[in-house]
Amino acid sequence: MEIMQVTGSLVCSQRVGGLDHMNLRILRTSKGKLNIAVDPVGASPGNWVFTASGSAARFACPDPTVLTDLTIAGIIDFWEPDG
Amino acid sequence: MEIMQVTGSLVCSQRVGGLDHMNLRILRTSKGKLNIAVDPVGASPGNWVFTASGSAARFACPDPTVLTDLTIAGIIDFWEPDG
Amino acid sequence: MEIMQVTGSLVCSQRVGGLDHMNLRILRTSKGKLNIAVDPVGASPGNWVFTASGSAARFACPDPTVLTDLTIAGIIDFWEPDG
Amino acid sequence: MEIMQVTGSLVCSQRVGGLDHMNLRILRTSKGKLNIAVDPVGASPGNWVFTASGSAARFACPDPTVLTDLTIAGIIDFWEPDG
Amino acid sequence: MEIMQVTGSLVCSQRVGGLDHMNLRILRTSKGKLNIAVDPVGASPGNWVFTASGSAARFACPDPTVLTDLTIAGIIDFWEPDG
Repeated sequence: MEIMQVTGSLVCSQRVGGLDHMNLRILRTSKGKLNIAVDPVGASPGNWVFTASGSAARFACPDPTVLTDLTIAGIIDFWEPDG
Repeated sequence: MEIMQVTGSLVCSQRVGGLDHMNLRILRTSKGKLNIAVDPVGASPGNWVFTASGSAARFACPDPTVLTDLTIAGIIDFWEPDG
Repeated sequence: MEIMQVTGSLVCSQRVGGLDHMNLRILRTSKGKLNIAVDPVGASPGNWVFTASGSAARFACPDPTVLTDLTIAGIIDFWEPDG
Repeated sequence: MEIMQVTGSLVCSQRVGGLDHMNLRILRTSKGKLNIAVDPVGASPGNWVFTASGSAARFACPDPTVLTDLTIAGIIDFWEPDG
Repeated sequence: MEIMQVTGSLVCSQRVGGLDHMNLRILRTSKGKLNIAVDPVGASPGNWVFTASGSAARFACPDPTVLTDLTIAGIIDFWEPDG
């Protein structure tokens, strides 16, 4: 799993069916790359989270048919980037 | 999921069977790399979209046997690259 | 899916069972990296193709038990690299 | 599988359901990137381990429904980095 | 599939259950990165091989429950790196 920081939410009204009603967050990796993840845990901007990718991302959602390849798996209690 | 911009469509008359009749789009990542994605949502050149990869890409199509490893999952309403 | 160019075929007489009788092509990515792909469409050296990776690569073969993580999914009609 | 070094454990009280009670380790790759992995073998900080990713990561846990995309698969007996 | 060169074997007495009795090889990519792969074909140090990753890696083993994300799929007859 990778460590990323939440930077905001994604507004996206036109989606494929399998993503209806899921919260989408914008995450930034340690190298500054932006990714979009489904958020089943309720993370806020600024939170450091770790993410599950691949087929595990689908099983991390309450409904495994959600169409995601990246899901927030947990919010890290304390994290010092580059520390 | 990753954020990419649609740059055009792909003309490809000789394909494997599982991709018949699917629209194929050329997408550019934030680093300038070009990818090919199946498009079930009807994106246009210039649109910013986010994409699902891996096994999720197949389930994002109406027919999960479509042979894709990258599918456009939604069109982003507003997006400022590097903003 | 990624865009690559066919550079040749791979001679490999000692293989695992699941790859028997499949044509293997050497492909070059836009960054110059070489990959090996199963070729169910009959591409020739110099052709620009797009490839399916991951589990989709297996389903792109007539026999889904073929042991591949990269399969040529189609031959692109016209392609200008970096164009 | 990749070779990484254990640097510590991750404190993360707010997780998705499928990760309950699993030990999470912070690993560093040869390029210095940090990853989070499920640890079913009991590795200690400083240990060199090799990791399984993707769907194999789930099967490496006693319970294959554990939501992981990276799992420690073994502790290497002797390892000289860059040697 | 990727092309790598065998550099040696991995001694690893403490493993997860699903890797028992499998030969593990250390492989070097064209960029010098080291990977660990399961070897069902009997490759020797110095051999150039090509590898299957992801879920295909599991099916490349006689027993598909082997916990691997990288498996040697064949030994290349002739190979000139960067040639």
